[in-house]
Amino acid sequence: MAPWGERLAGVRGVLLDISGVLYDSGAGGGTAIAGSVEAVARLKGSRLKVRFCTNESQKSRAELVGQLRRLGFDISEGEVTAPAPAACQILKERGLRPYLLIHDGVRSEFGQIDTSNPNCVVIADAGESFSYQNMNNAFQVLMELENPVLISLGKGRYYKETSGLMLDVGPYMKALEYACGIKAEVVGKPSPEFFKSALQAIGVEAHQLLSM
Amino acid sequence: MAPWGERLAGVRGVLLDISGVLYDSGAGGGTAIAGSVEAVARLKGSRLKVRFCTNESQKSRAELVGQLRRLGFDISEGEVTAPAPAACQILKERGLRPYLLIHDGVRSEFGQIDTSNPNCVVIADAGESFSYQNMNNAFQVLMELENPVLISLGKGRYYKETSGLMLDVGPYMKALEYACGIKAEVVGKPSPEFFKSALQAIGVEAHQLLSM
Repeated sequence: MAPWGERLAGVRGVLLDISGVLYDSGAGGGTAIAGSVEAVARLKGSRLKVRFCTNESQKSRAELVGQLRRLGFDISEGEVTAPAPAACQILKERGLRPYLLIHDGVRSEFGQIDTSNPNCVVIADAGESFSYQNMNNAFQVLMELENPVLISLGKGRYYKETSGLMLDVGPYMKALEYACGIKAEVVGKPSPEFFKSALQAIGVEAHQLLSM
Repeated sequence: MAPWGERLAGVRGVLLDISGVLYDSGAGGGTAIAGSVEAVARLKGSRLKVRFCTNESQKSRAELVGQLRRLGFDISEGEVTAPAPAACQILKERGLRPYLLIHDGVRSEFGQIDTSNPNCVVIADAGESFSYQNMNNAFQVLMELENPVLISLGKGRYYKETSGLMLDVGPYMKALEYACGIKAEVVGKPSPEFFKSALQAIGVEAHQLLSM
């Protein structure tokens, strides 16, 4: 691999993941990963454009940013690209009314969305809300649609909390895909559209980017 | 398709499914499907060998047979091939100690199985017991094993209850497969070994069989 100086030539922007990169989530707000508060401060003090690009879908951006600020990070809501707002835009554009299989913490992001008489399902990292009853509700909504639409906020297999490994949204997305014989649309990483929207927000081209 | 008389020439045995064929499960013990009580009686009064082959894994055979008898079926426990006893045999043969992600109704079938310090996961149609907590427990057991073994009692997508469609074990099996990057071993239909054990029980060869 080329040395850092060479790799950084031409780099104009940096995309930073949040969970597992800046901090480990967990009880009591999680813990900052050693050196990350300082690294963010140095990047933001440099000539580089910085954007935070996360698949976090248990919390609203407001809650997430509040938590990070309490851990010492200099970060504001407008600097964060997250799947829930991206999904809301898709729902509005396509006239979709979702059954929301999501964590209560992220529900506020969907405050402007019509959820009556659902014609699609949005699934996110719902944690304890992944009950059999809720999964079955989502399944029944999909089975009653002529063209079932399942939108998944990310497709991660699992993530690490301070207490151990936790199932992410991906396994539950796969469960509904198999049950209904359909394929989900993934909003969030690794979807190229999602990365593009983060780049557009800082006016940087893909070849000018460092992502970590 | 050949006429019935021709198709039945050489047939010596009949395998009958239970749920969705003899009865629809649901609240209050479910309901017999019209004509099925009489059909079973006529088959058992004929020259044909009859065996019941089910993927039912929410109930023990004793409970299932009790329910069917109350609905008017002439059926005994010894006439039923079911996944839980087949799984117990595999666990014993291979020295496996399962974490059981199953419905309480079928737990008695595993009464003789050592479940301490689990070195595999057995998943069945657990219904409401498919909580996030229980799924995550199963996931964590698998992730800590060098060679993760996941045994699934069937892989059905869903089944019909009198109240509507219900998620079966298959979607949850797929969820754990994806989360852990593994492939489950399916015990029950459509596994050829499972059908073979049902045939052996009535001494009939596959080409002499009618299955419905």
